[in-house]
Amino acid sequence: MISVDLLVAPRWLVPIEPAGAVLESHALIVDGGRIVAVLPIAEARAQYQARETLALPDHAVLPGLVNVHTHAAMSLLRGIADDLPLMDWLQNHMWPAEAAHVAPDFCEDGARLAFAEMIRGGVTCINDMYFFPDASARIAIEAGVRASVGLIAIDFPSAWASSADEYIHKGLELHDALKHEPLVRTIFAPHAPYTVSDAPLLKIRQYANELGIGIHMHVHETAGEVAMAVEATGKRPWQRLRELELLGPDFIAVHMTQLTDEEIAQAAAHGVHVAHCPESNLKLASGFAPIGKLRAAGVNVALGTDGAASNNDLDLFGEMRCAALLAKAVAGDARTLPAADALHAATLGGARALGLDDEIGSLVAGKSADFIAVDLSAANTQPVYNVLSQLVYAAGREQVSDAYVAGRALLRERRLTTLDEHAAIARAGEWRRKIKP
Amino acid sequence: MISVDLLVAPRWLVPIEPAGAVLESHALIVDGGRIVAVLPIAEARAQYQARETLALPDHAVLPGLVNVHTHAAMSLLRGIADDLPLMDWLQNHMWPAEAAHVAPDFCEDGARLAFAEMIRGGVTCINDMYFFPDASARIAIEAGVRASVGLIAIDFPSAWASSADEYIHKGLELHDALKHEPLVRTIFAPHAPYTVSDAPLLKIRQYANELGIGIHMHVHETAGEVAMAVEATGKRPWQRLRELELLGPDFIAVHMTQLTDEEIAQAAAHGVHVAHCPESNLKLASGFAPIGKLRAAGVNVALGTDGAASNNDLDLFGEMRCAALLAKAVAGDARTLPAADALHAATLGGARALGLDDEIGSLVAGKSADFIAVDLSAANTQPVYNVLSQLVYAAGREQVSDAYVAGRALLRERRLTTLDEHAAIARAGEWRRKIKP
Repeated sequence: MISVDLLVAPRWLVPIEPAGAVLESHALIVDGGRIVAVLPIAEARAQYQARETLALPDHAVLPGLVNVHTHAAMSLLRGIADDLPLMDWLQNHMWPAEAAHVAPDFCEDGARLAFAEMIRGGVTCINDMYFFPDASARIAIEAGVRASVGLIAIDFPSAWASSADEYIHKGLELHDALKHEPLVRTIFAPHAPYTVSDAPLLKIRQYANELGIGIHMHVHETAGEVAMAVEATGKRPWQRLRELELLGPDFIAVHMTQLTDEEIAQAAAHGVHVAHCPESNLKLASGFAPIGKLRAAGVNVALGTDGAASNNDLDLFGEMRCAALLAKAVAGDARTLPAADALHAATLGGARALGLDDEIGSLVAGKSADFIAVDLSAANTQPVYNVLSQLVYAAGREQVSDAYVAGRALLRERRLTTLDEHAAIARAGEWRRKIKP
Repeated sequence: MISVDLLVAPRWLVPIEPAGAVLESHALIVDGGRIVAVLPIAEARAQYQARETLALPDHAVLPGLVNVHTHAAMSLLRGIADDLPLMDWLQNHMWPAEAAHVAPDFCEDGARLAFAEMIRGGVTCINDMYFFPDASARIAIEAGVRASVGLIAIDFPSAWASSADEYIHKGLELHDALKHEPLVRTIFAPHAPYTVSDAPLLKIRQYANELGIGIHMHVHETAGEVAMAVEATGKRPWQRLRELELLGPDFIAVHMTQLTDEEIAQAAAHGVHVAHCPESNLKLASGFAPIGKLRAAGVNVALGTDGAASNNDLDLFGEMRCAALLAKAVAGDARTLPAADALHAATLGGARALGLDDEIGSLVAGKSADFIAVDLSAANTQPVYNVLSQLVYAAGREQVSDAYVAGRALLRERRLTTLDEHAAIARAGEWRRKIKP
């Protein structure tokens, strides 16, 4: 008998690899924060002596979800301005509110509220983009969640930095400060083509190559920004990014609602990853990302919630369902993005986008024990003919009962174990009174 | 002091009328199953002596949601066949399964599971369309939920009836049997233009006029069915329904994804109501209903979940969010279907479609006390700048804590009071084993 930390015994195990698999009467064996084995329960009980057993008789266990695009601290601005187009929303609401209030305590309090919501909803890996990324990193460490914090760069000054060079410089300092953190990494996060000029983009590409840091950027979110760029420069932003050699397999392009067939082929050729944020794209009337075409071309598609000020939740189950539903209508083919592929996008697709697919995104021996349990016993997920359909089309995030990162429970029986949720909610109320007295 | 049954004291009261209103420090007074008053809490306490007080310190109280289109019993087929186009799904999966299994016990068990899910999710009025509508009526009475049961008619035989005439005849018998039920009514439910021929449609219009019964029908769900009709008859189904004089203010047209501008104007002129089912339309790749244009033309828009076999949940909060998000992208304008209008569609819009707007759909004195409470204290609905935004864009149906119909609690502190949910779930499992052994 081999002694291990944990034996997880769910009703169904959804490993993501092999694609579409649903295992019954199987166990997940965890030791030292890593997956030791996935094997039939009888064999598991014969071979392993576990210090703890997690019995999940009504549950599906799957990899923790990966949210590849959010602005966590904007949870404090949830619902402050809705039903507005992107540029009006940004220029007349978000940017003024941020100019007045963004500071380390705002970013910490907002990240704590956002991470609490996301962990409850089964998100175990978060790719964040916001000012004061050091604050987001601190809260990720406090929460024990896996995170990639964006080293933001933007041409205009903020409380975090006063010039593009200072953004990059402070980002590199943070990268250095986090180098021994096991769960928190960094990624360059130049905001968007329309807010970052060529010189900082070229520097970012150079540092990315030297240090092995990825790049995370809004690209072709709306038709308007593409038209403006064409009018001003004669060039679509995508073409400019190509010429600056920004595009590559370390590049996450967020939104991508405006794409020609040639650009889709180029995205595949460059190995770019797409962070699809369907609810945000709908809500801001930005457009429809051609997910069926992108996947058919071989582009890796991952899912993001975007920030709570434009969504207005951080619910990756909702995003997965919306992506699967919307892709069908946009393609005019109900076979597009079936349940198994939507689950892939929310897990292994996200892990690949972040360069973490050797570490997370599927339940296979050797990877980190980042997994969640979803209780399917509720009326709304009964009866169960097809576990993958239930997870994508019927389950709500409130059915996530447990969430683990590197073998550590962050959510147990629907209770957060690392974050003080009540304090986070109380602080959110204080910010509301301060921001809109 | 006036003695009354119930004083409801929520943090926020969303009466739907006047449009967009959010009342703070207000109470809802209920007596004899009806709303007696909506007034400031201090005045309420001075004027009324309530036998029961419902304190809801973190909650928004709003009218119960109205689901204007579902096939409740199909909950037993949830997830049996997904990621397929409408006609393949219908002809190769749904119709064979129904031919083999539909019977009174199937319909009762399916309706009980569906009604449990819907009441939990804040739906207090259900417009159903399925075989054995008497079964649906019996379960609605057992549940205490408000319902309109569809007197289904279709050209092909089923376990319920063998000819279009028998469908109509049995429907009229059921209408008669239910005439003294306070909460359950009937509505004619000819399935669709492509499954019901002219003669039964003409009879239905005649009986509808004589008896004051409405009509509920799938119309222009997909481009394919419109094209087939044009090829076979030279006529779009909508035009045929017009010529048969089916269309009028007692007619609920479900789906309506394929509409010319002229048809939109005609829908407004006839006073037809649209039952918008966005998730079903997306999942079956049926198309996009032009909700912005319909509303601009003055057409009343209500919301439906469709059946759990094509959605796959019966979540009207999800449908409301999807409708609000999708309408913006389809119109290319983020101001389309703002939060207040989406809430209207899910409540008063549904009530109007069913001819029940004098009775339900808003919280005003004289109407029936059909209301729900939504707990906004969770991390995902904090902070609260705008209650309507939180309800539409951030809240999940699991935040519904209480649901009342005609002053009677069907859900109290998240527990169903009238339905045996465990038994319903157990029966669903038995059906699954029988249907897919």
